[in-house]
Amino acid sequence: MSDTQPSDTAPYDELRRSLRETATLASAAAVLGWDQETYMPPGAAAFRGEQMAALSAIVHERHTAPRVGELIAACEADASLDDEAAASLRALRRDYDRATRLPTSLVRAFAQTTSRAMHAWREARERSDFGAFAPWLQEVVDLNRERAQAFGIPAGGEAYDALLEDYEPGMTAAEIRRTFDALRAGLAPLIREIASNGRRPDDAWQRTPVPVDRQVGFNRWVVERMGFDFQAGRMDVSAHPFCEGIAPGDVRITTRYRDDAWADALSSTMHEAGHALYEQNLPKAERFGQPLAEAASMGIHESQSRTWENLVGRSRPFWEWALPEMQRALGEPALQALDVETVYRGMNVVQPGLIRVESDEATYNLHIMLRFDLERALLAGDLAVADLPAAWNDRVRDDLGLEVPDDAQGVLQDIHWSMGAIGYFPTYTLGNLYAAQFWTAIRDALPDLDGQLRRGEFAPLTGWLRENIHAHGRRYTAPELCRRITGRPLGHEPLLEYLEGKLRPVYGI
Amino acid sequence: MSDTQPSDTAPYDELRRSLRETATLASAAAVLGWDQETYMPPGAAAFRGEQMAALSAIVHERHTAPRVGELIAACEADASLDDEAAASLRALRRDYDRATRLPTSLVRAFAQTTSRAMHAWREARERSDFGAFAPWLQEVVDLNRERAQAFGIPAGGEAYDALLEDYEPGMTAAEIRRTFDALRAGLAPLIREIASNGRRPDDAWQRTPVPVDRQVGFNRWVVERMGFDFQAGRMDVSAHPFCEGIAPGDVRITTRYRDDAWADALSSTMHEAGHALYEQNLPKAERFGQPLAEAASMGIHESQSRTWENLVGRSRPFWEWALPEMQRALGEPALQALDVETVYRGMNVVQPGLIRVESDEATYNLHIMLRFDLERALLAGDLAVADLPAAWNDRVRDDLGLEVPDDAQGVLQDIHWSMGAIGYFPTYTLGNLYAAQFWTAIRDALPDLDGQLRRGEFAPLTGWLRENIHAHGRRYTAPELCRRITGRPLGHEPLLEYLEGKLRPVYGI
Repeated sequence: MSDTQPSDTAPYDELRRSLRETATLASAAAVLGWDQETYMPPGAAAFRGEQMAALSAIVHERHTAPRVGELIAACEADASLDDEAAASLRALRRDYDRATRLPTSLVRAFAQTTSRAMHAWREARERSDFGAFAPWLQEVVDLNRERAQAFGIPAGGEAYDALLEDYEPGMTAAEIRRTFDALRAGLAPLIREIASNGRRPDDAWQRTPVPVDRQVGFNRWVVERMGFDFQAGRMDVSAHPFCEGIAPGDVRITTRYRDDAWADALSSTMHEAGHALYEQNLPKAERFGQPLAEAASMGIHESQSRTWENLVGRSRPFWEWALPEMQRALGEPALQALDVETVYRGMNVVQPGLIRVESDEATYNLHIMLRFDLERALLAGDLAVADLPAAWNDRVRDDLGLEVPDDAQGVLQDIHWSMGAIGYFPTYTLGNLYAAQFWTAIRDALPDLDGQLRRGEFAPLTGWLRENIHAHGRRYTAPELCRRITGRPLGHEPLLEYLEGKLRPVYGI
Repeated sequence: MSDTQPSDTAPYDELRRSLRETATLASAAAVLGWDQETYMPPGAAAFRGEQMAALSAIVHERHTAPRVGELIAACEADASLDDEAAASLRALRRDYDRATRLPTSLVRAFAQTTSRAMHAWREARERSDFGAFAPWLQEVVDLNRERAQAFGIPAGGEAYDALLEDYEPGMTAAEIRRTFDALRAGLAPLIREIASNGRRPDDAWQRTPVPVDRQVGFNRWVVERMGFDFQAGRMDVSAHPFCEGIAPGDVRITTRYRDDAWADALSSTMHEAGHALYEQNLPKAERFGQPLAEAASMGIHESQSRTWENLVGRSRPFWEWALPEMQRALGEPALQALDVETVYRGMNVVQPGLIRVESDEATYNLHIMLRFDLERALLAGDLAVADLPAAWNDRVRDDLGLEVPDDAQGVLQDIHWSMGAIGYFPTYTLGNLYAAQFWTAIRDALPDLDGQLRRGEFAPLTGWLRENIHAHGRRYTAPELCRRITGRPLGHEPLLEYLEGKLRPVYGI
C-alpha cells in the first residue's frame, strides 16, 4: 500500500487484497472444474483430482490463516468503516469462524469419507443395492453431526441449522419445515387433482428430433436476448448442465443435448443462464473475493434460475415472442403448425414421476420436501439409515401416488448425500418460493411485464433483478433480502397461487 | 511416509513428493494457459493475468524453498541412490542453484520490464517504429546481462552461455557459432543457386480453398496415425499454434486454419503433434515433476516437431501414403488430379522471404542464424541497440538477397526479445540439426523406413523415438543424447546433406 494511506484503513485494505488473492486461486480451480466437464481428455481424469486437491488445500489454508482472523478483528474494531464494509465484515466473521471451528482431523475425515462414499454410491446405484451404500451414509450422517457440533448449534435450534448455514445462511430448519408443510398441504391435493383429471396437454411435439447444432443456435439466441454477455461468458455442452461463475468477465454455462429433447435443453439452458445473469451482475470487477461480490445464498441463486426457466420460459407471453423464432431456427416441418396455446400447455404438463431431475415445476417440490424431511430425521436420529428406503418409498406413495420399483429409482437416485451434503436439498424449493414471491414484487414494479416479455424486451426484468438482487451480493441474508423486496418473510402462498393460477386453467379444473 | 521406509531414502521421497506437488500447481497454470488461447471469453483476459501471476508466484516460491535445497543436499550425500536418481539430482541441483542465484529484486524487475516491453513491442510493430521499442530492448539486454552475471558465467565462456542454459543446457554459444557458421557456408550458396535457377515447382494447389472442418478431419486422421493419443490429448484451434504438455494424460495441440492454406495447417499440425508425441511419451505417470519426466532441451523438443513436419511430412513416401486420403478427405475437385510427384515438389518449394514464420525448411535456418548472431552481439556489447535495424537489414540482404521495406517486416517481427528471451532463437535450428542427425541413426536402425512411411506404418519410427529419446527425459543433456544416439557430437553435415540431397533433384540443379 501507498505510505500516504491513513493507517486506520490499512487492515481493511490488506484484508481485501488477501481475499482477492485467495479468490483468484479458487477461480483457477474453477477453470479446471469447467474444463473437466467440457473439454478435458478422458486420460487426464485421474490426475485432475490431484490438481484440484492441491489448489483446494492452498485456498483452504489461506481462508483460515491466522492473519486473516487478525485482520477481521482489527477491522471490526475500526469505527470509521462504512455500512458496506460492516456488512462485508459480518459475512467474513461468520465464514472465518465456521472455517476455523472445524478441527483439521474432521476436515480430512470428511473429505476422505465423502470421496469414497461417492464411489460407493455410484456402484450401489448401478446395482440398485442400498445395503452397499448404507454404511457410507451412516458415516456421512455421523460426520455431519460432528460438524454441526463443531460449528455450534444455535440456541433453540437443531444440528440441521448449523449445516444449513453453508447453503442458506440465516434460515432455520423449523422455518423451512413450516413453509414446506404449508406448501405441501396445498400442492399435493392440486397434483392429485391434476393426475386424476385424466387430461394431458399434447407435448409429443417436444420429442420432435432436431439436430443439436440447430438447438444450440436457438438457445444461444434466447440467452443472448435474456442479457447473457457472450463477451464475458461461454455456452458449451456437458453431461451434467451447470453454471460456473469463474472470475470477473468469465461466467460459463453448459447444456446437455439430445436430438429428441430440444424443449428440455431450452429449459435447462434458460435455467443456467438465469444463474449466469446473477454471476455476471455481481460486482466482481471491483470486489472480487469480497462477500459483496458473492451470491446471497443457494436459494437466492436458485430463484434466479427458476425465474427464467419457469416464470418466464413456461409463460404464454414468452412463447408468443419465441415461437416464430423457434420454428425458424429449429426448422423441423413437424414444428411449423404449432400455435402458442399448444406450446404453452405442453410446456406445463404435470406428471408425477419417480426421478427428481426429470420432474415438472409442480411435483419437483414434493421431491425436495421428501428429501428435506428424511435427511433432517436422519441427522436428528429420528430415522435409522436402515429404515430410510422404506420411509422413502412410503412417502413417494403418499405424495406422488407411485410405487418405487427399486432403490436406483428411489433413495439412491441423487448424488448429494454421498458428497456429504445435508442441508442442500431444501435450497431448490426455497429457490422456487423466492422466485414466486419476488415475481409478485416484479409485477408491481413492472406493470407491463407481460407486454415486455411478449415483445422480447427483457431489459426491464434483468434491470430489476440486477438492481434489487444481484447488485447486493451478500450484503443482506436471503431472509433480509426477501423482506426488503417483498415486505414480508418468505411464505408458501405466492408459489402456490402461481401454480394454481397457471395449472387449473391449463387442465381445465 | 510409512514408518517402515528405510530412513536413508526418506529425503529422496520427500523431494519427489514436493516436486510432484509443485508440478501439479504448475500444470493448473498450464490448463489456464491453454484455455486462454482457445476458449476463454474475451472479457476474461484482463483477470487471467492475475490468475496466472498468483499461480506462478506460488510455483516459484516452492521451487526455491530452502527445504528443497536441504533435501537436494541430503540426497547428494546419499551413496545408496541409483544412477537414475543421480542423474535426476544433477538436473535438480542445476535448476535449484540457478533459480536461487537470482535476487528477488531482479526477478521482479525482469517480470515487470518484459510485461511492459511486450506491450511496447506490439505497438511498435503495429506502427513499424523501432525507435519506440529501442529503450525497452535496451532494458531487456541490460537485465539479461545482470541475470547472466547472477547465474555465473562459466570459465572460458561468455554471458550468452549463462542464458542459453535456460533453453539448451550443456550447449555453448561458441559451439553453436561453429556449427551455424559451417551450416551457413553450405546453405547460403545452395539457396542462392535455387533462387537464381528460375524454376519453381507448382504449389498453387496448396491455395485451393478447403472448408476448415474438412481440414480438421484430415489433420486429425494424420496425427492419429502418427500415434497421437486422443484419449490423453486434444486438438483445437488457436490464433498461434502450440503444444502444451499439461499433465499426465493431458497433452493438447492447436492449429491455426485458413480456408486457402490447408497444406500450411497440415505442416503446422504435424509439427505440434511431433512435440506432443514427446510429451505423451515422457514417463510422466510415475515421475511427474521429476527431471526424468521432462524434455532434455528446447532443441531436442524442436527436433521432434521438425522430424514430423519436415523429414516425414515433406517426404515422397509420406505423400505416397497420404495423397489418396488427402483427396478423399478434402474433397475439392481441384485436388483430385494431383500426383505424388507434384505434391512432393510443391511441399519443397524454397523461396527466400522476409518473415521467419512463413519461411521454408531451408531458408528458415538463415533467419535463425541472423538472430543468433545479432542477439549474441547485443549481449556482448559488440552491437548497440540503435545499430540493430541496420545490422538486421544488411544481413537479410547478404543472406536472403532481399531488401527490408520496414522494421515491422524486419527487426520487429518476432515477440521473443520483448519477452526477455535471449538464447531461445538458436534452439529452432538446433532442432533441425538434431532431427537430421538423428534421422541418419533412424535410417540405420530401420532399413525399411521409406517402405514403412509409404504404408503409413509409423509405429517403428515412433517406437524408436520413444525408446531412444522420449523415455530418457532429462537423464542426458542434449549433447550427451546426441553422442549416445549418433556416436558423434552435433554437426552441420547431416542437415546440409539432407537438404542438398532433397532440393537439388527437386530443382534439377
